Order: sequence, then C-alpha cells, then structure tokens
Amino acid sequence: MSLLEDTIAAIEGADGEAVADARRALDAKTKPRGSLGRLEDLAAQIAGIRGSAGPGALRAVVVVVAADHGVASEGVSAYPQEVTRQMLETFASGGSAVCVLARAAGAELRIVDAGVGTPTANIAAGPAMSRAEAVARIEQGIELARELAGAGIAVVALGEMGIANTTAASALAASLLSRPPVDVCGRGTGLDDEGLARKVEVVKRALAANRVAQSDPVGVLAALGGYELAVLCGLALGATAERLVVLLDGFITTAAALVAARLAPPSVPAMLAAHLSPEPGHRILLDELGLEPLLDLGLRLGEGSGAALALPVVHAAVAVLSEMATFESAGVTDAGR
Amino acid sequence: MSLLEDTIAAIEGADGEAVADARRALDAKTKPRGSLGRLEDLAAQIAGIRGSAGPGALRAVVVVVAADHGVASEGVSAYPQEVTRQMLETFASGGSAVCVLARAAGAELRIVDAGVGTPTANIAAGPAMSRAEAVARIEQGIELARELAGAGIAVVALGEMGIANTTAASALAASLLSRPPVDVCGRGTGLDDEGLARKVEVVKRALAANRVAQSDPVGVLAALGGYELAVLCGLALGATAERLVVLLDGFITTAAALVAARLAPPSVPAMLAAHLSPEPGHRILLDELGLEPLLDLGLRLGEGSGAALALPVVHAAVAVLSEMATFESAGVTDAGR
Repeated sequence: MSLLEDTIAAIEGADGEAVADARRALDAKTKPRGSLGRLEDLAAQIAGIRGSAGPGALRAVVVVVAADHGVASEGVSAYPQEVTRQMLETFASGGSAVCVLARAAGAELRIVDAGVGTPTANIAAGPAMSRAEAVARIEQGIELARELAGAGIAVVALGEMGIANTTAASALAASLLSRPPVDVCGRGTGLDDEGLARKVEVVKRALAANRVAQSDPVGVLAALGGYELAVLCGLALGATAERLVVLLDGFITTAAALVAARLAPPSVPAMLAAHLSPEPGHRILLDELGLEPLLDLGLRLGEGSGAALALPVVHAAVAVLSEMATFESAGVTDAGR
Repeated sequence: MSLLEDTIAAIEGADGEAVADARRALDAKTKPRGSLGRLEDLAAQIAGIRGSAGPGALRAVVVVVAADHGVASEGVSAYPQEVTRQMLETFASGGSAVCVLARAAGAELRIVDAGVGTPTANIAAGPAMSRAEAVARIEQGIELARELAGAGIAVVALGEMGIANTTAASALAASLLSRPPVDVCGRGTGLDDEGLARKVEVVKRALAANRVAQSDPVGVLAALGGYELAVLCGLALGATAERLVVLLDGFITTAAALVAARLAPPSVPAMLAAHLSPEPGHRILLDELGLEPLLDLGLRLGEGSGAALALPVVHAAVAVLSEMATFESAGVTDAGR
C-alpha cells in the first residue's frame, strides 16, 4: 500500500475507554458535574484522541503551510501574489500575527514552503495540479506529522498562507458540499463588493472547468485545491493516525480537513475547531464536520492565528483533567450531582 | 471625602488618545486592517484603560473573594454552606479549578476571606448588612486594588466563592434592573426545577423585605448583596481608579460590577467580560453594561474560572500590539485597506 493508503488504514477514531475514564475523573473533581462546560468535553475528547485519560501537558506546534495559486491572476485577492513570499519572510523574522500568538501560547512554530513562487495552475481554466502531485503533497504532510509525533508533539495547529487561497478553498467546499459558490465565497482578507462578485464568478468557472466526482476527494483536491491545502490535508491525516490533536484554524484549514474527513471519516474525532471565521463558508464546513468552534472573535487573518489563540483553551482543558483535586482528596462535601 | 468618594471622583474613563494611537499602530501591522477582529478592539481598549498605546506585558492576578450568606438557610443551593470554607481550603492547596486555570494562564492568585463562617443576614427577611458594613467592605476592595496596583499588577480578574451567592446576585440584579426575579434566577451550580422555583420565591421575598431605591446602589448592595459582592464592587472601583484592567468572570462578579457602574459610570470602559455564563441573568447584566463576552464555553462554576480562562486572550491582544511587525518594517506590500 502507499503511504496515503497506509495512513488512512491506521486511523482508528477515538478511544472510547479513555473518554469514559476521563469523564469519570472529571466528575470526581471539586466542582459541580459539568460546570466547566465545554472545557470538560474538550478534556474528554483529547483523552480519546491521545488514548489516555491522563494525557499530561501537551507540546504544541503551529504549522503554517504556504503556497502560491495561479488563480491569483484572476484578481480574486486584495493583495498581490508577491505578498505570499513577503509574509514567509515575516514568519521567519517572528513578526507576523501567528508568530506572536504562537509565542504567547508557548507553542513552537513550523513554516512549510509548499510552493511559494511556483504557483499551481489557474483553477478557473483547468486542474490546479495533477493527481500524482496532489498525492505527493498529501504524503509530504503525512511525513511531517510523523516527524512531529516522533519529536514528542501532541497538538498540531494548522495554519496557512497563500494569496488567493480562499478562492481555492471556496471551490473545494462548493464542490465537496454541492453548494453554489455564492454560499461559500467571502471577502477573504479584504475584498470589496466588486471583488467578491468576481471571486464568485471565478469559482463558478473553476467548477465548470473541473468536473470531478465528489466521491473522489483526491481528484477534487488536485483539480480545485492548492499545494498548501494538500499538505494540510496530509497533516490532518498523518496527525490523526499518530493520535495527535488536530487544531483547525479558519476556512482554509477546515476545507483541507474536509478532504481528510472524506478520505478517512474516523479522522474527524481528532479535530478541534479553534474559532469561527466571518468567511461564510467556514460555518458551513464546520457544520458538515460536526465541529463547534472554541472561539468566535471575528478573526479573518488566517496564518493559523485563530488556532494559536485557542491553544491556551486546549492546554487549560488538559490541566483541569490532570491537576484539579477531587472531592475526596480535598475533603469537600459532594452534592452528588 | 471618604475613600469611596475619593475613588469614584478619581475614575476618569478611557484615555481616548491612547486608544487612537493604538488603533493607528494596529493598522500599520502586517495584516489586513481589522483582520484580527475583537483582538484588535481589545488591544485598543486596554491601551485606553492603561493610558498608553504601548502597555507592554501585563501582570495579572485572579482575586477570589469568598463569603457566606444567611440566605443559604432557605435551601437555594445544591450545596451546604460549609462548602464555602472547604473550597477556601482547596484554593489554598492549589487544587480548585481557578487555581489550575490561573496557573495555566501564568496569573497570580489571591484569596480574600470576606466573611466565611460569619454569614450576612438572610435577605429574604431583611437587609444582608448595614450600610456602614457595605461601605467598609467596598473600601476593603478599594484598598486591595491600590495594593495590587502598587505591586505592579495591571489586570485584576474577579472571582468569587460563596454558597447561595447567585441568589444574592439575582436579587441585586432584579432590583437594579427592575426585572422580575424569574428573569435573572438560574440553576447556579446545579439546582433542579423545584430548587429553581424556590430560589425565585426567595428572591421575591428578598425584594419585598428590602424596599430600597435603585438610585442608591450602596443601599441596594447592603440590603440584597453579600460581603464578597461588596468587596468585588470595591475592587472594580479601586482598580479602575488605578487604571487597571478589570476582567469580570460570570454572573456574580458582573452583578458586583453593575453596582460599581451605577456608583461610577466611567468605570465601565475599564471592564472586560471574560465569558458568558448559562445563568440567564448574566446576559442581561452584560447587555446593561454594554459588554460582549470574550468566551462562550458554557462555564457555570464561578470562582473566577472563566476570567482565568480568558486571560490568555487578553495577553494575546497586548502581544499583537507590542510585538507584531509593521508593513513598513517587514517590507510587505500594503493593500491599503
């Protein structure tokens, strides 16, 4: 079997016993049952992902995958294509939003150049890349996930950079969900009304130029995606196979996660939605995946900024599970609720 | 003038120049204008509170004020009154939720015993405390805020512990907002339907037994509040006067903040709402104060747990302002949006 097939076969879904053990442990803590709300659900979910009711402190990395898109030539972004490379340099110097937010969250940062300066073909005219290229990029993501797991990473937060990549993600989402482009296209990092209308038309042309069956997620990804979307899809698959927590950022990383989910439905329980972006397609994708975002603060920057911002909530959930006293150990009267 | 009067007179509201400077600095950062959403609003607000567009890293403390309530004898809580003291011990040993979450957020923790074991009088029968006692407790909070400011603290996160204190907070809210008790009473840490109905009746009796004019916030606090509510009100006033950020937790701390806001309306711009509690009265109080919560994760534990959980978002906002590169410094093309 190929690395991709091996990885899909290795994805097992949540460890139900670890989830149940974590729930019991949380119920014994000195607090009314369930009173920490979603923090308790999150702790139990993480126990299920890691396969342990005592997952301990989790080392986290924010992986920012960057690439250029031929469709940028259609004028679908408020920024010129060279900004992708410029931002790559800002990531390296530590001054971009995701650098600051990852540092604030105590997370490592990993930048992956998946094709900056060597854009995919224009999806409005034909496929972004060949099927073989798509598989190679997915497998690049899987290999990175294996390396991160080997280095002791427990949480992979997904981030991206690529001028015009909301257009590719919109095309992917429209295709995989059978939604009209207008439902899943948004203003990205700052389109005006005219730009948004142009983007919708470009996605329509992309769908017309690339007729691929929904039942072939790799084919859809090759046709409508981008290099960073393929690497992110592979990262999600590889991380899940390695029992790492996959923390999604906004619309683009969630589109990549949907491809992963279509390839391996049991990967979904390993995914957490960090935040809700104002991109209209994001809520649609999250609903499709059955994910509820942790934060809703109007972030629409990408880079992994929302994922980095949500990381402390993930760490807090695990800390509650591992560090809180129990009613018994603390000698506190339990009302038994 | 008294300490309370002095403090109210010293509250100036936001520094508009610092807010404008922070907005300009945020607009120059390497990101589309406004793309960090509420994180940018938060950074600008904090600049206004601190009176500086470069507030730097902010030392934070979570202050948990604990007290007992005579109204606990009416059976309005799922837990017996002795749990207040037991939880005080759990705070000291570091095993309660707020301890874990404050630690995870890198915040200090300060526990204040404002009357554990010496409950206020039963508000269902008459005033909780005398007016002089209420003023003394408010001034205790003001003095604590001054001490914290002197020690270099920049963010005061408010927390509380007190069996039956959602009943007192509900009575306060109903009185100050002229709302029927049923609107502002919730299940607290775990009441069943019968318990909730009893709580509503108790709040009705409290309002009938304590007819105080809304225009006299200290009078309402003395009649319907509790020792921790009075100290928290003073903390909010004192912290605002010292230009500290006041981070509210859930329903109870927000009720105390409403008393502060009625005494000194310019204190409101210094307040941040950490999260939205499922207590129905919380949203009503936040709307009255014009505050939008940062998190909405179903937390209903109190202690300051939601405030501690939101602290990393506050730190992240400030880090964005102080650490992100500008378009100019990073050499990134600005689309001018």
